Amino acid sequence: MIIELEENAPTEAKNNLHIRLQHMGFTVQSAGHTRLALVKGVDSFVRPADFQHLPHVSKVHSLKIRYKLASRACRNEDTIIDIKGVKIGGAELFVCGGPCSIESEQQLEACAVTIKTAGAQALRGGAFKPRTSPYEFQGMGEQGLKLLQQCGERHGLITISEVMDPSQVELVAHYIDILQVGSRNMQNFHLLKELGKMGKPVLLKRGFSATYQDLLMAAEYILSEGNPHVMLCERGIRTFETHTRNTLDLNAVPVLKELSHLPVIIDPSHGTGLRSLVTPMARAAVAAGAHGIIIETHPEPDRSISDAQQTLSFDAFRQLMHEVSVLHHAMRQEI
Amino acid sequence: MIIELEENAPTEAKNNLHIRLQHMGFTVQSAGHTRLALVKGVDSFVRPADFQHLPHVSKVHSLKIRYKLASRACRNEDTIIDIKGVKIGGAELFVCGGPCSIESEQQLEACAVTIKTAGAQALRGGAFKPRTSPYEFQGMGEQGLKLLQQCGERHGLITISEVMDPSQVELVAHYIDILQVGSRNMQNFHLLKELGKMGKPVLLKRGFSATYQDLLMAAEYILSEGNPHVMLCERGIRTFETHTRNTLDLNAVPVLKELSHLPVIIDPSHGTGLRSLVTPMARAAVAAGAHGIIIETHPEPDRSISDAQQTLSFDAFRQLMHEVSVLHHAMRQEI
Amino acid sequence: MIIELEENAPTEAKNNLHIRLQHMGFTVQSAGHTRLALVKGVDSFVRPADFQHLPHVSKVHSLKIRYKLASRACRNEDTIIDIKGVKIGGAELFVCGGPCSIESEQQLEACAVTIKTAGAQALRGGAFKPRTSPYEFQGMGEQGLKLLQQCGERHGLITISEVMDPSQVELVAHYIDILQVGSRNMQNFHLLKELGKMGKPVLLKRGFSATYQDLLMAAEYILSEGNPHVMLCERGIRTFETHTRNTLDLNAVPVLKELSHLPVIIDPSHGTGLRSLVTPMARAAVAAGAHGIIIETHPEPDRSISDAQQTLSFDAFRQLMHEVSVLHHAMRQEI
Amino acid sequence: MIIELEENAPTEAKNNLHIRLQHMGFTVQSAGHTRLALVKGVDSFVRPADFQHLPHVSKVHSLKIRYKLASRACRNEDTIIDIKGVKIGGAELFVCGGPCSIESEQQLEACAVTIKTAGAQALRGGAFKPRTSPYEFQGMGEQGLKLLQQCGERHGLITISEVMDPSQVELVAHYIDILQVGSRNMQNFHLLKELGKMGKPVLLKRGFSATYQDLLMAAEYILSEGNPHVMLCERGIRTFETHTRNTLDLNAVPVLKELSHLPVIIDPSHGTGLRSLVTPMARAAVAAGAHGIIIETHPEPDRSISDAQQTLSFDAFRQLMHEVSVLHHAMRQEI
Repeated sequence: MIIELEENAPTEAKNNLHIRLQHMGFTVQSAGHTRLALVKGVDSFVRPADFQHLPHVSKVHSLKIRYKLASRACRNEDTIIDIKGVKIGGAELFVCGGPCSIESEQQLEACAVTIKTAGAQALRGGAFKPRTSPYEFQGMGEQGLKLLQQCGERHGLITISEVMDPSQVELVAHYIDILQVGSRNMQNFHLLKELGKMGKPVLLKRGFSATYQDLLMAAEYILSEGNPHVMLCERGIRTFETHTRNTLDLNAVPVLKELSHLPVIIDPSHGTGLRSLVTPMARAAVAAGAHGIIIETHPEPDRSISDAQQTLSFDAFRQLMHEVSVLHHAMRQEI
Repeated sequence: MIIELEENAPTEAKNNLHIRLQHMGFTVQSAGHTRLALVKGVDSFVRPADFQHLPHVSKVHSLKIRYKLASRACRNEDTIIDIKGVKIGGAELFVCGGPCSIESEQQLEACAVTIKTAGAQALRGGAFKPRTSPYEFQGMGEQGLKLLQQCGERHGLITISEVMDPSQVELVAHYIDILQVGSRNMQNFHLLKELGKMGKPVLLKRGFSATYQDLLMAAEYILSEGNPHVMLCERGIRTFETHTRNTLDLNAVPVLKELSHLPVIIDPSHGTGLRSLVTPMARAAVAAGAHGIIIETHPEPDRSISDAQQTLSFDAFRQLMHEVSVLHHAMRQEI
Repeated sequence: MIIELEENAPTEAKNNLHIRLQHMGFTVQSAGHTRLALVKGVDSFVRPADFQHLPHVSKVHSLKIRYKLASRACRNEDTIIDIKGVKIGGAELFVCGGPCSIESEQQLEACAVTIKTAGAQALRGGAFKPRTSPYEFQGMGEQGLKLLQQCGERHGLITISEVMDPSQVELVAHYIDILQVGSRNMQNFHLLKELGKMGKPVLLKRGFSATYQDLLMAAEYILSEGNPHVMLCERGIRTFETHTRNTLDLNAVPVLKELSHLPVIIDPSHGTGLRSLVTPMARAAVAAGAHGIIIETHPEPDRSISDAQQTLSFDAFRQLMHEVSVLHHAMRQEI
Repeated sequence: MIIELEENAPTEAKNNLHIRLQHMGFTVQSAGHTRLALVKGVDSFVRPADFQHLPHVSKVHSLKIRYKLASRACRNEDTIIDIKGVKIGGAELFVCGGPCSIESEQQLEACAVTIKTAGAQALRGGAFKPRTSPYEFQGMGEQGLKLLQQCGERHGLITISEVMDPSQVELVAHYIDILQVGSRNMQNFHLLKELGKMGKPVLLKRGFSATYQDLLMAAEYILSEGNPHVMLCERGIRTFETHTRNTLDLNAVPVLKELSHLPVIIDPSHGTGLRSLVTPMARAAVAAGAHGIIIETHPEPDRSISDAQQTLSFDAFRQLMHEVSVLHHAMRQEI
C-alpha cells in the first residue's frame, strides 16, 4: 500500500507518520519525497480508507502488482545511485570494465589503467567464481578482493565483485563498492535478504530464464529489507538459438524502465558470449536507453582463465568506449 | 563449391567458364566479381581438384556450411539491392512505414504523406493477411495491391506487401516492388522456390523460432533458384517472456552480417508488440548496424483492424524518424 | 455461437433449422447430435437472444474461446475417425509406421510386412520432402505416392503422406488415405483451407513452437471449411535443450484432450530425434492417453536417406509394438 | 580419470591403490566395484600411461565428458539408494506424497495416513519456502521439520524437505531423511558442496531452464565432495507455452538414465501446474521408466497455502496410486 502525502507536507510530518505507522505495527518504507509504502503483504487485509484521515495524507492506493517498492507506482522519479561521486541511473553513461576472474595484480593493474584512461568509471573482477563444473578454477577469494580494492583506489575507480553466498556478504562488502548477484543466484532468497540488510549497492543480474517480473520480485527482496540501492542487469536469456551463448534481450531496457525506477545495466559480454558481438550490442544497449554497460576485458583475452571467447582486448575496449560515447553524446544532445 | 578466378581474369573468361561448367552438368551461380558457385549439393561427390586446372582458376574451395550462396564465404562484398534508386544494404538507412492491413485509399494516402515527408523510402501494407483465426479479417486482396501501387507511385515510395502462397506470387509481383515472406511461411519451400524464379526483391522474415541457420537456409532456397535480391528480416522470436508479444533478437544484426552478405532489416513493431517499445528498439537496431527498419503506422492506431497495440501514430512515427536519423548520422560521421 | 437443441428434438427439426439458418445467411456446421454451430466470427455482431425462440432450441451460447468447432464446448463427444474400418480417436490404439522418405518399392514392401505383422494399422512415407536445405533429396513425388497406395492395398494398411502445398492436395488425396500437414506448414493457411474443402482425413502436426491454441486455431481452419476429420499430432517443440533434436511435449496429450474432441497422435521419432528414446517415449505417450503414435522405421536405418538417427530397425519396431500393446491393454483393463 | 581394476582384483588391492593414489596427492572416489575415479580436473595434466603399471590395474581411461562421477562411464551399475529399507533407483516404484507447505500437525497427519494406506513410501512437506515474493508465506521453519519427522516415524514413512541455504543443511539433516534442492537453487554451488559433505541422500531438482548437462554437473558438485546418494528430479522446464505453468520434459527420463547411473524422479505436480494433468503425466513418467514420482496432495487442496492449483485431493491421490501401480506392474511382468 502506498500512502501519498500532500505536496507541501513538511518532512517532519512525513517522519511522524512514518513512526506512527510503525507503532501501528507496519513495516514502513520511504518511497520518494512524498510517499510512504507499507510492505509485507498488508494489501490483503488493510483498507486504504483506514489511512485516509491521517494528517497530511492526500491519497492512499493499494498496489495490484506483486512488486511494490520496485515499481513506478511506488516511486516515480528514477533512482540515482551515487557511489563516491559516480552517479548511476541518471543522464551519465556508466561503464564498468574488467576481467571475468581476478588472476593477478598485474592483470588487474593493466585493466585499471586501460579502463580509467578510456573514460570508464568502474573496475570489475570475480574473486569467487560460480562454475558449472566443480573441477574448474573457483577464484582467488579474499586475496582477490583485496587486490581489487587496492587497484580501484589507486586509479579512482569504483569496484564491483560477485557475492555467491549469504556468509560472504560481510566479507565482500568490506572491500568492494558494488556487490553483484549472479544470474544463477537471482532467486537465492537468503542471499537477497542478506544484501537487503547491508548498506552497499547491489547489481542484480537477471536469471537466464527469469521473466521481467521475476527479476523485479528478486529486487523487491532486497528493497523490502531496507536497501534501496539496486541496479537491474540484463545479461542474456536462454533461447533455442545455439549460435550465440545467450540471447541478449534488449527489450528489457525500455520495459524495465517503464515498470521500475531502478537503474538498468546491460552486460553484452555474457549476453552474447562472442567477442565480435560485444561492441555492436553495447552500442545498441546505449541507444535503447540503458543507464550503463558492463564489459569483460583482459590483457590477453585468449589466456583468460574464464570466458575467453567473450572477452575484449584493450584495443577493442577503447574502440567500444569511443563508439558508445559518440552515440550517448548524440542521444543527449539531440533526442 | 566455390571456384575463385584470378583477380585479373577477364569477364569473358568468367562467362566462358560459367557456360563450360553448365555443359558439365552443374547448376552455376555468379557469386561476386571473381567467383562462381556450383550449387545443388555437389560438394558431396565432386573433388575441388577436378576444377583446379581450368583456365584462370586461382582457388577452389568446397563449403562446409550448409548455406552457400547466402554465405560470406561465397560472396564477400555486401549485397546492395537497388530499387528505383533506393539502395538497401549500403550506407543509407532504409526505412519502411505503413499499416499492418490495407483498409482504404484514405488510410494509405495519409500514411504515404506522413512517411514521405518524414524521410522514409518505402510504403508497406498487407493485402492478404495471414491470421491465426479463420474468423478474422483476411485482407482486401488484389484491390488492396492496386491501391498500394498507385499510392506508392503518387508519392515516389517503393512498396512492400506480403505474399502467402505460390499461386499469389505473379499477382503480387505485378503490382509491388518488394515481396514479403511472413514468419509463418519462412519454411514454405514451394513459396520460396517460386520467389526464387521471379525477378523482384524479397523481404524474408525470420520464423519466430527459426535459428539463424534456418533463416539463411530459407534464403538459400530463393538464391539457389537464381534470385539474388533477398533481405533478411528479424521480427522477434518466441521465448518464455510473456510481457512482450515477442522478444526482438538484435543479436541477429551483427550475427547475420558476419555470416552473410545480405541486407539485414529489423521489424521492431512485431518484434516487441508494444507501442512504447518500438522507438527505443528502432534506435537500438540502427545502433547495432541494421541496414533498415520496418515500422507499423496508422492514422488512428487504436482503430487499426490488426496489430493496433504495436502501431504508431503519425506523430510517434515522425519522432522515431528523427531519433533514428540522429543516431545513424552519428554512426556514419564518427564510427 | 453454439445452438443447442432439445435432447429429444427430431433429426428433421435439426436439419430444418440448419437450412433456415443458412437462409438467414450464416455458415452453419453440425456439431454433435444436438448442436449446430454458427461460425465465421458471428459472435461479434449477433446476440444469442435472436435464436432463443427458434423451434426445438433449448440453449444458445456464444463462445469466448477463439477456436470453436475444435472445442469441447462445441462438441462434447470424442471425434472418432473411421478409415476403411480403422477407428482413430476411440478405445483402440492407432499405430502408424514407415520410413521418413519413400525410397523404393522394396523398401516400402519390407516396411509394410513388418508393420502389418506387428499389428499396426497404417503405413507412412514421404513423397514430397520439406527439407531445410534446397540441396537435399526432395522426394520421389507422384511415383512415390503410387508405390505407397499399392503397398497399402496389398497389405490392408491405410496410408499417410505429407502434402506441402495447396496445389498438391488433389494429387495426394487421389492416392492416399490421410493427408499430413508438416509442422513447418501448420500455419500455411492456404493449405489448411484447401484441406478443409476435400473429404479426406488430415493429420495436423504441431509447429515446433506453436502453442496449444495455435494448433487448435490451425485445426479450426480445416474444420471451418467443412472437413471434420482432423487429428492433432504433437511432434516435439523447440526448447533450450540441445541433447535431443526436439523436446517431445507429452503435456499436450491431456491438455488437448481436455480442450478438444479431436484425436491426439504422438510422433516420438521426430519428438526426440534419437533412436534410443523412441520406445520409452512411445510407452509414455500411450500411458498419457494418446489415441495413436506414428513411428519411423526402415529396413536399414543407417542407410535411410533422411532422419536416420531417429529411425527404428524392424526388430526395434516389433519390440516397441509389444511394449505399447502391454501398456495399452493394462490401461483398458484396469484403469 | 577412471582407473579400472581387474575383474578378480581383491578388495584389499583396491583399497591399497585407493590409499596409494591419495598419497600421490589425488582426490580419489570409489566408482563401482572395480573402479576408482581421480577427480578435480586431473584429466588436464595427468596421462593415463602414468597409472597403467600399478598393481591389478586393467584399464585407465580419461573422461571427455565434463561430469565424471555422475556418468555411466564412471559407474555402470545403477545407483540404488537404500533409506530405512526403502530402495530408490531399482525395480520398485518410489512414490512420495505430501503438501507443498507444512501448515499444521493435523494437515500432515491426514496426508500421512492417506499416503501410507495408498502404498507410497515417503512424506514430503516444505518447512522453508522459496517464494518469488518476499510478501508471501515463508514456511514454518524448524517447527515444521519436527512435525514432519514425528509424522514420518509414526507412519513408517521416510521424509523429504527442502533446504535453501548452506547454513540450514545441518538443521534439516538432523530431522529429515532426504534433503531436497529446489530448482532455483540447482546451481547454488555453496549449497551443493555443503550437501556433498554430509551423509544424507539429496533430491536434486532440475532448474527450470537447466540442460541435462547442467543438471549432471550440479550432481557432480555433490558427488565430488563424497556424497554418492543423489537423485535427479525433473520438475518441468520453461517454454513458450503458457497454458501450463511448466512443460514437464519426460525425455529427461530415458536421457538421464542413458547418461547417468543416478535414480531419476519425476514431479508432475510442479511439472504441469494443473491438477487435471498430474495423474496422466504420472502414468507417463512411470511408463517412460522413471524410478519414482513426487506428488503434491492436501486434505483441502483449494485451501492449500501454496500451489493449490496443482495439488491433488486424497481421492485423486489414491486413484493416481492405483493407476501408476497398474502400469508399473505391467511393465515389470511383461516388458
